[in-house]
Amino acid sequence: MSKPFNDAFLKACRKEQTPHVPVWYMRQAGRYQPEYREIRKKYTFFEMSEIPEVCAEVTRLPVEQLGVDAAILFADIMTPLQHIGVDVEIRSGVGPVIDNPIRSEKDVERLTEIDPETHVATTLEAIRILNQQLSVPLIGFAGAPFTLASYMIEGGPSKNYHKTKAFMYAEPVAWKALMEKLGAMTISYLKAQVKAGAHAIQVFDSWVGALNEQDYQLYVAPIMHKIFQALKEMGVPTIYFGIGTGHLLTEWNKLPVDVLGLDWRTSITQARAKGIDKALQGNLDPSLLIGPWEVIQERAKAILDQGMAQPGYIFNLGHGIFPDVPVENLQKLTAFIHEYTKR
Amino acid sequence: MSKPFNDAFLKACRKEQTPHVPVWYMRQAGRYQPEYREIRKKYTFFEMSEIPEVCAEVTRLPVEQLGVDAAILFADIMTPLQHIGVDVEIRSGVGPVIDNPIRSEKDVERLTEIDPETHVATTLEAIRILNQQLSVPLIGFAGAPFTLASYMIEGGPSKNYHKTKAFMYAEPVAWKALMEKLGAMTISYLKAQVKAGAHAIQVFDSWVGALNEQDYQLYVAPIMHKIFQALKEMGVPTIYFGIGTGHLLTEWNKLPVDVLGLDWRTSITQARAKGIDKALQGNLDPSLLIGPWEVIQERAKAILDQGMAQPGYIFNLGHGIFPDVPVENLQKLTAFIHEYTKR
Repeated sequence: MSKPFNDAFLKACRKEQTPHVPVWYMRQAGRYQPEYREIRKKYTFFEMSEIPEVCAEVTRLPVEQLGVDAAILFADIMTPLQHIGVDVEIRSGVGPVIDNPIRSEKDVERLTEIDPETHVATTLEAIRILNQQLSVPLIGFAGAPFTLASYMIEGGPSKNYHKTKAFMYAEPVAWKALMEKLGAMTISYLKAQVKAGAHAIQVFDSWVGALNEQDYQLYVAPIMHKIFQALKEMGVPTIYFGIGTGHLLTEWNKLPVDVLGLDWRTSITQARAKGIDKALQGNLDPSLLIGPWEVIQERAKAILDQGMAQPGYIFNLGHGIFPDVPVENLQKLTAFIHEYTKR
Repeated sequence: MSKPFNDAFLKACRKEQTPHVPVWYMRQAGRYQPEYREIRKKYTFFEMSEIPEVCAEVTRLPVEQLGVDAAILFADIMTPLQHIGVDVEIRSGVGPVIDNPIRSEKDVERLTEIDPETHVATTLEAIRILNQQLSVPLIGFAGAPFTLASYMIEGGPSKNYHKTKAFMYAEPVAWKALMEKLGAMTISYLKAQVKAGAHAIQVFDSWVGALNEQDYQLYVAPIMHKIFQALKEMGVPTIYFGIGTGHLLTEWNKLPVDVLGLDWRTSITQARAKGIDKALQGNLDPSLLIGPWEVIQERAKAILDQGMAQPGYIFNLGHGIFPDVPVENLQKLTAFIHEYTKR
């Protein structure tokens, strides 16, 4: 390590004072980068995941290029599912497609357990490599059980999660078993990431906003409680993120998680007004990033003013970076955030 | 008219006492009905819209079959766009597809004006026929400018509305012109529906929940204010509905509209806690309707208890009926609502 370790991100997760507002971007390793597009020409997504050096390179690139305060492991939320009996494929322009969707309790029963040291050895090796190279914290991550289940039941991406919810309502016993199995897999996978050297964990529950508060309480909250409780024992900060989950924030605030990630819809002020007292991460609309710089700056400033009102704030987007965003806009944005918030 | 006119729905819109909680369902004329599927075998969607008698039949069918308290005109929110220069086609399994998407201010300039008596004569004729036949109120409707613009800019359905928002941020002048043109079209189309005999109007802003509160205020609220103000002069109740718009309800409550439609995510209790004092419509999760009857009944009961806490409540789903819902479940649900809420 040549540079001193920058722990601003970890401090903000713990609601401690930081020298500046830390920032990282969801999907900061992605197709908007010319270098990433070059690498993707050579490998499929899952092929990349199989080569620890490539994973590490792709993870490191945006840290150097943008100057962000945290790295996020290059992987996909679907990665561990391959190893418990789910036939998943990432289809370009579509997303994850699953050839053997869950249709019954029997389908849930045939899911197996994950053994991280065997099954995701390359991911863990990438973490160990990155630990030697990075001077910012490395965020490990996983998909949350509801979001993984939505792909497994729908057979791919969905606009309404109709099959998922229909299964949940009609087969509550099978649903519970599915949540338990995916929860155990997630805990095992994430603990292995922390043991390998991840400094923090983000759990992506991207699509759980499709549920109302009552259904979240009944069908999802118990497993999320279990996951974050298990991670608490590992001593690393945890982040919980979803799209369109503003109506669930009061429930999320009850979970043993450190940071809540907001999408662009719910402002930090709106979240605080609901009594959310955890650290917050977010939430510039990622569609803004192809707009004029003046608009980006004005909106970022407004968000920073809200976020800095109390300790425990990490700047991020409200969702992942789109492929058509110029790298330069993210470089300018990162520099602006650091400059504007310097104490 | 053989039966006396049932005005429970109109009274509830005006927050007056009603003999029972009125109910209708979004997409109550749809593919879940065997009779509808038969008619659809004979015509394309737009062909159906061209024959007033078929429109009227399809509109009337669920009223007779389910016993609901209101009819909603059979049409599509894209219907008027065809007449202002938008090449739109409803593609089965995809949704509306537009061959000449909006890319610049020039594309906005070439949009023309609608003349309802010429362009949507069949729709207006269907309303006149239905007025002779129905003993419940007929709801006319239109898509709201943001939602229509999202199709026009994306070229079809979208998951993230990235192009729409990018256009909005980068081309504020063209965006405003687009909202004004679509607003004028909507006012003209809806006024013609009321003149032909529609008793109430629902405006579908299905996808406006993709915006945060600040963007809604800046880019959408002015045109919605104009539309509802123009409809106020017509003397019929108005309803405003969108998906995932819980974070916009405080803004919506300021509009000169009578009823706010809630999707299944935001409960009536949550909406009232935000200070929403308008009449409310909603909001059973439509995915519940293929579940066991006991679960449907229990959830409907919970929603009715919330809704009946003050006058001005209309039962509905949080979104349209899915094609796999058994007709019988909707018949039982309608009967249960009437029975449970009878005064």
